[in-house]
Amino acid sequence: MATEWTTFETHPSRYKHWKLAVDGELATLVMAVDPEHPHKPGYELKLNSYDLAVDVELADAIQRLRFEHPAVRCVTFAAELDRVFCSGANIYMLGMSTHSFKVNFCKFTNETRLYLEDASGSSGLGSLCACRGTTAGGGYELALACDQTILVDDGSSAVSFPETPLLAVLPGTGGLTRLVDKRKVRRDRADVFCTTAEGIKGKRAKDWGLVDDVVSRSRWDDAVKARAKAIAAAQKTARGPAIELPALAPEVAATSAHYKYVKLSWDTAARTAALVVHGPPPGEPNLADPNTWSLRAFRELDDALLHLRFDLPEIGIVTVRTSGDAARVVAHDDATAAATTGLAREIRLLQRRVLRRYDNTARSLFAVADAADSCFAGSLLELALGADRFYMLLDDAEAVAVRTSAANTGFLTTSSGLSRLHARFYGEPARVEAVLATKGAAIPTEDADKLGIATVAADDIDFAEELRIAIEERASLSPDALTGMEASLRWVGPETLETKIFGRLSAWQNWIFQRPNAAGPAGALRRYGTGQRADYDRKRV
Amino acid sequence: MATEWTTFETHPSRYKHWKLAVDGELATLVMAVDPEHPHKPGYELKLNSYDLAVDVELADAIQRLRFEHPAVRCVTFAAELDRVFCSGANIYMLGMSTHSFKVNFCKFTNETRLYLEDASGSSGLGSLCACRGTTAGGGYELALACDQTILVDDGSSAVSFPETPLLAVLPGTGGLTRLVDKRKVRRDRADVFCTTAEGIKGKRAKDWGLVDDVVSRSRWDDAVKARAKAIAAAQKTARGPAIELPALAPEVAATSAHYKYVKLSWDTAARTAALVVHGPPPGEPNLADPNTWSLRAFRELDDALLHLRFDLPEIGIVTVRTSGDAARVVAHDDATAAATTGLAREIRLLQRRVLRRYDNTARSLFAVADAADSCFAGSLLELALGADRFYMLLDDAEAVAVRTSAANTGFLTTSSGLSRLHARFYGEPARVEAVLATKGAAIPTEDADKLGIATVAADDIDFAEELRIAIEERASLSPDALTGMEASLRWVGPETLETKIFGRLSAWQNWIFQRPNAAGPAGALRRYGTGQRADYDRKRV
Repeated sequence: MATEWTTFETHPSRYKHWKLAVDGELATLVMAVDPEHPHKPGYELKLNSYDLAVDVELADAIQRLRFEHPAVRCVTFAAELDRVFCSGANIYMLGMSTHSFKVNFCKFTNETRLYLEDASGSSGLGSLCACRGTTAGGGYELALACDQTILVDDGSSAVSFPETPLLAVLPGTGGLTRLVDKRKVRRDRADVFCTTAEGIKGKRAKDWGLVDDVVSRSRWDDAVKARAKAIAAAQKTARGPAIELPALAPEVAATSAHYKYVKLSWDTAARTAALVVHGPPPGEPNLADPNTWSLRAFRELDDALLHLRFDLPEIGIVTVRTSGDAARVVAHDDATAAATTGLAREIRLLQRRVLRRYDNTARSLFAVADAADSCFAGSLLELALGADRFYMLLDDAEAVAVRTSAANTGFLTTSSGLSRLHARFYGEPARVEAVLATKGAAIPTEDADKLGIATVAADDIDFAEELRIAIEERASLSPDALTGMEASLRWVGPETLETKIFGRLSAWQNWIFQRPNAAGPAGALRRYGTGQRADYDRKRV
Repeated sequence: MATEWTTFETHPSRYKHWKLAVDGELATLVMAVDPEHPHKPGYELKLNSYDLAVDVELADAIQRLRFEHPAVRCVTFAAELDRVFCSGANIYMLGMSTHSFKVNFCKFTNETRLYLEDASGSSGLGSLCACRGTTAGGGYELALACDQTILVDDGSSAVSFPETPLLAVLPGTGGLTRLVDKRKVRRDRADVFCTTAEGIKGKRAKDWGLVDDVVSRSRWDDAVKARAKAIAAAQKTARGPAIELPALAPEVAATSAHYKYVKLSWDTAARTAALVVHGPPPGEPNLADPNTWSLRAFRELDDALLHLRFDLPEIGIVTVRTSGDAARVVAHDDATAAATTGLAREIRLLQRRVLRRYDNTARSLFAVADAADSCFAGSLLELALGADRFYMLLDDAEAVAVRTSAANTGFLTTSSGLSRLHARFYGEPARVEAVLATKGAAIPTEDADKLGIATVAADDIDFAEELRIAIEERASLSPDALTGMEASLRWVGPETLETKIFGRLSAWQNWIFQRPNAAGPAGALRRYGTGQRADYDRKRV
């Protein structure tokens, strides 16, 4: 097994930090962080501060609300504590974490909050943040990710971003971006807010657009309920039927993790991993089956990607292969696309989220089609289109081929809002049309090369050697430079709130996380709570 | 004087690294870098590599072509060396530079290349890069900034981005962004290109869209000339009349630099600077005067900003004041906006570039209107709108006021393409209209506050104390966190190629510049040329 194997699978019955309750069209997620159960030993999760363990449960809860509770139309976030809604990411955890962990933790928490917005925007599940007490840092960032936020008006409860004044870092879980781009808080007021450690409360918080309303303690419960009902009533997208999400429970061994459809294996010495996604089994697609391929294979891929990020940091390059019957992939994609149920939409949206997590995984991704049973078709073709390169074998029998399906026609957009075909052929829509004009027919390597799908097409005399050299060369390059390079080339084209969070905000936060003013021995993050002030290098960069 | 006082003013007669020649509608800029005249001692500028000294001359040349040579319709970049067009930024210079210098150097070179594109896009001056010989790194980035690029087809000349494979950094002078976003090179091919140190030459360079054509040595001179003529013929925007740009020659003392209209003074102990821009002198605006206020004041502001960035790194916060007759500012703005000459357009475009440089200066900017002769009107109001905060004194006489002019109506866009009013009221265009509806009338502080122009409006009992505390607090915060925070709040809204270069690409490059894999003792940047391979930490982040 890898040195660590983080737990990303959980279930409401095992939550330690959240209480999920469902009542008709309303759900509540009560944050009740257990200080004694941090992700790793070494710090306590006081004052509803959070770490990865807390956020894994949150991500699970949002996912289950989508699939298992389609009657729910609004989820309300609340806290069990009376004077603290949430004090944000745990600072001691950040102070003792490696740079790599901090960056991946932030990426995961960002994804979770984007998924909450996705549930509201695409899936008929709205959200309300009911902030009673201190709502600081990541706590307010959770509020910003909700459709609406209300704050108790009790003379002391405030929303705040103390990161910059107290910790010398940014509200990097989407905070700065959502403040001005989503909530449209005036940028000069945002400047004041983000440098005022104690935050802003009461009427001013509402006037500045930081919250949607402020409500007295006496009116609180009624106001929360009324607003949740109004949010629920405004959500019209059809949902359901419900399915329960079964556990994935991969078999994890020394150098591999086996799921039902996904296999991840790694070679730490070579710094490479091999990801294989198997196509659907024989039989008609049955979307109502909780283990239906379109859902399960992508859930497994998601889990494998998270382990890759957190537990296999030394793996720099991942080969991505597919294996199975391409026609069956197309059949499953087409069935998922054609079905009009809320469940089918949820499956499509889950595939979209998982593919975005794939795009956003900071490892070099080389897709490889080198066997007759390769099945880069439809939703699996997206893996090749999202990869940094796609190597295809030119075989005489023309057995190696790709295919399109309904899944390539536009709804599996990247974070930038482009489909992967449109991102690949940025500014050349005619090329996208040429690929889609194949209408699901097999596109052998030679044609795929002409159409611009293959990066490298080579015959069997050269293929293996060319791929081997490319992988070795890639593995020899600076991991940091590759991360930055891939972050620029993968996000060609328009930027969205989502890409701004991962591109602009996260890149600055990552830079700041490296700077001695934050992370050095005399930096604010390390000195927080010691009584000593941080000692800053005053040079502006 | 500050510890150093960098030279940003130059003149073709003093160029050491470029040869500017003008012949009718065609100009050539021949790169002939003198290895013995680097910006600072310690390295030689071999193989047409460049540093700040080289780029200051390039920026000067482009500016002079715009103002002094309006007959020119295309500038062709060429090199004096036969086998090397340009080998990019000097690596030894980068290896020995401070992080702060590297970041500011890259920002300046990025601005210069954007100005070249601005000349073509807005000003009737096209560009051609004629690459004979090695065109590597920053050399190819210069080519990408030109309208068209041709490469000699001699079996050896290649374009290349060796930064990632050889130096563990990025082609950060817009390279990655322009490759996929501007030239629309397919992202997987861009991946191959950016990891292939030796680059790509000949037909493949053309097929992949890396260059517009490849031409044999025998046809070279004719092909260059023909293409330059075609670029010139396609440029239709009216230009001129010509004016010569006079030297600014500020008086620089221990803690101040005085220009004709701009004064910059600083207090290193308090880490603050004061920037004052004076309004126009009495008299009718005369745009044909090379010292006309609309041109000279903004050129001076530009120079002051560059000194602030390079020579005053410890200054974290800048107060920005204006002094003069607001009606005269409006008169000059309106005259500049109404005039239909190419020269008037050049002046407007220069103002736009300078204001973008202001936005993009990584210092906290507090605009302050606290005197009756304050003149935040029109083009100077943009300084208040672009600042992080705007403090306005509420005086009984209502003498403190702002005004709009034609300069606020839209053409002085920020890098994001929004006007500063539209960025301030992002998503609320009615508020922009409400401000513009004042039609140049004085807007006293109380009204400015109601309209959303002032961040803080305070009467004279509180004003000075509130401002003093705000400045002291700001100066106490982490410079790095503020840089990241401001980079997120200032660029609310849409992203453009330009903001992607400064936001996404530069932020990643800044991060990488801090990483030991590049800048550490065993990093690639420091070990380049030593014969030792870099020793990388293999963890992916």
